Amino acid sequence: MSFKHRVVIVGGGFGGLHTGKALNRPDVEVTILDRRNYHLFQPLLYQVATGGLSPGEIAAPLRAIFEMQKNLRVLMTEVRDFDLERKVVLSDMGEIPYDSLVLAAGAQTSYFGNDKWSPIAPSLKNIEDATKLRAKILSAFEEAEKESDPERRRAWLTFLIVGGGPTGVELAGALSEIANDALREDFRSFDPEDARIMIIDASPRILGAFSEKLAKSAERQLIEINVRCRNGVRVLGITPEGATVQANGQQEFIDARTVIWAAGVTGSPLGAALAKAAKVELARGGKIEVAPDCSLPGYPDIFVVGDLANFQHGLERSLPGVCQTAMQMGDYAGDLIGKRLDGKTKPPFRYWDKGNMAVIGRRRAVAQIGKLEFSGYFAWLLWAFIHVLYLVNFQSRIIVAIRWGFDYFSFNRGARLITRQDQQPPGS
Amino acid sequence: MSFKHRVVIVGGGFGGLHTGKALNRPDVEVTILDRRNYHLFQPLLYQVATGGLSPGEIAAPLRAIFEMQKNLRVLMTEVRDFDLERKVVLSDMGEIPYDSLVLAAGAQTSYFGNDKWSPIAPSLKNIEDATKLRAKILSAFEEAEKESDPERRRAWLTFLIVGGGPTGVELAGALSEIANDALREDFRSFDPEDARIMIIDASPRILGAFSEKLAKSAERQLIEINVRCRNGVRVLGITPEGATVQANGQQEFIDARTVIWAAGVTGSPLGAALAKAAKVELARGGKIEVAPDCSLPGYPDIFVVGDLANFQHGLERSLPGVCQTAMQMGDYAGDLIGKRLDGKTKPPFRYWDKGNMAVIGRRRAVAQIGKLEFSGYFAWLLWAFIHVLYLVNFQSRIIVAIRWGFDYFSFNRGARLITRQDQQPPGS
Repeated sequence: MSFKHRVVIVGGGFGGLHTGKALNRPDVEVTILDRRNYHLFQPLLYQVATGGLSPGEIAAPLRAIFEMQKNLRVLMTEVRDFDLERKVVLSDMGEIPYDSLVLAAGAQTSYFGNDKWSPIAPSLKNIEDATKLRAKILSAFEEAEKESDPERRRAWLTFLIVGGGPTGVELAGALSEIANDALREDFRSFDPEDARIMIIDASPRILGAFSEKLAKSAERQLIEINVRCRNGVRVLGITPEGATVQANGQQEFIDARTVIWAAGVTGSPLGAALAKAAKVELARGGKIEVAPDCSLPGYPDIFVVGDLANFQHGLERSLPGVCQTAMQMGDYAGDLIGKRLDGKTKPPFRYWDKGNMAVIGRRRAVAQIGKLEFSGYFAWLLWAFIHVLYLVNFQSRIIVAIRWGFDYFSFNRGARLITRQDQQPPGS
Repeated sequence: MSFKHRVVIVGGGFGGLHTGKALNRPDVEVTILDRRNYHLFQPLLYQVATGGLSPGEIAAPLRAIFEMQKNLRVLMTEVRDFDLERKVVLSDMGEIPYDSLVLAAGAQTSYFGNDKWSPIAPSLKNIEDATKLRAKILSAFEEAEKESDPERRRAWLTFLIVGGGPTGVELAGALSEIANDALREDFRSFDPEDARIMIIDASPRILGAFSEKLAKSAERQLIEINVRCRNGVRVLGITPEGATVQANGQQEFIDARTVIWAAGVTGSPLGAALAKAAKVELARGGKIEVAPDCSLPGYPDIFVVGDLANFQHGLERSLPGVCQTAMQMGDYAGDLIGKRLDGKTKPPFRYWDKGNMAVIGRRRAVAQIGKLEFSGYFAWLLWAFIHVLYLVNFQSRIIVAIRWGFDYFSFNRGARLITRQDQQPPGS
């Protein structure tokens, strides 16, 4: 067997996937390490959290994706650290040597130092989060059905979303659909339309990544579906009964049995591990500052792609932590590794901004494509089309399209299961 | 508001569902109590455990099923006990009074007194079991990929199913499909076809509820797909490394990192609670002996239907714990409660045996309908047709049909996610 260039990719998200695909050549031996066995289509995670889709419909087994790419193997293992001198990745299954390393470990939820809020105010970064959140949301309606005190019932029917980014807006929209459509006929002691859905954000407006005009349009569209946005509101504390917030210099308590955290992310701890191994400082948000070719400065064989990378060269602000950044960086890093093996080189990475969109519910969305701005029904059609198109796995694509078609006509949500983690005591 | 007859149904399985549906009349107020918010189509649970279907596709929210039946409400609560003097059900949300009570709490897994095997050898009674089992099965292949020692790899690729009833046979068939079709191209360090799948059963043959001839046919069909059946084999002990068994008077250790328990069920502990409250003895298997009208002897207003009922009147052996028994008993009990309100009565319950089937994999099954027996492809077609037809929720019906059609042509399994219950340490 001849010598092959060994590429180790850490993480099977959009960045890792695209790096792997770009390295489909026989003289390279690619290993993808991930602690999960599937690639997750994160943009639709909020649909799982709100019972619109099943986990299996937005996730594809990594092995199935790379089934036919015989130069690539997938190992399900937890990566712990890096030894850059000896060029090995330290994992739960031991040392894995590399010639080129691509770190695509992504980001995780940040409670800005208040990790004690995490069990009370769940966030939405992975499948387990989504099914937990789904159980929490649906259980709130179940508790409301059993509650005879109007005050307490109102608290069960209040949903407070912290953070007005795309995730917060999408969750709010889906929650409104649940309350106004899917559950409309389901309860006997209250009307689900009485649910109060609120988004609070510390900044002066929601959807900071969009133009002022689109953010205003989004707020109007949210009001149409009974979602209230409050800007300039800071969270001081969260308890199982609700949240203490500061608004206009005043403290206030919002009675809400369901508080959802959609406010912040920070780079994976593997970023910190790599920074420490390379003796560089972590950038803002737990990210790693990368060179114009997405490599770690001083380490031309190590690349950082996706949410974990802080890429700022010649830009007003660093590239956004979205799928398209990760995909393009992955494509670039994979291609560059191949080019180098052929003795060639490649111009620096250039991000092609294909646009930005956030969905607000059935037939409502905002989209920004270059200088063009869309809102309402057309933006929603665009959003639905692009998202179904991008779903990695062909099977998922069909299922999602059909389920959506069906939901659209039936106003129903089929995947609204409350599954529990723990063993059950005796009962029905 | 005029007085209404209050019927409380404990359990939203097939028995509870059919009782509720049979009581769609304005002079009755029906309450279904269940600790879950969904009805589960249990016959397809093994498909979830083997990655063929998603949980949401074989479960339907109870509220959605009864959306339009306005005399029925669903309460998600855990039932603890019964006070038959005061006619109340004691639950986590307090006392719930009834005029008629229908207990349809079903059965649960029994390890025959060896509960310590439960964490090592998972069983398959609910969604959580199924996703746990799915993770265990898929993780075994992942571990095999990482293992370099051939002996240990062989143990990771050995799947031992304890119990040769329909569940054991169906799981074995689905496991064989995974190994021989779905995962065929997925691994680099072994061939998934090398997986050893074994069914052991203490009785002299598998599928005891079927004729000798069909059981033999099933064994032959299993051998065709590389599943080995060993009869007359008793389990003495289970460890994470495998199982100690007794066969032909000899002790033997089977190296198998995956042991699945498909051997026994026992009535829900609510059966014991009701028996204690009524001061009657529990029947065999933790069931409750019922009168010819499915009522609890001495309590004409209390009915026990489904897996928890032991119905033996004029029969060679008590009715089998299958869906059709539960459905027919539920229909009967609901109808009888209504008839009595109209001052009428009803002849004793009669079970109509519509037949019995077990699927062995793609194009393989056995079926017994009256005196007719089928096996192979035709039995499988029959099985697939009936199961898709019976899926309670219309949406599920469409999705399952399409996914199956797709799987059939693609030899793929889309829902093979390893989800975990616990919080994750840092990593990819």
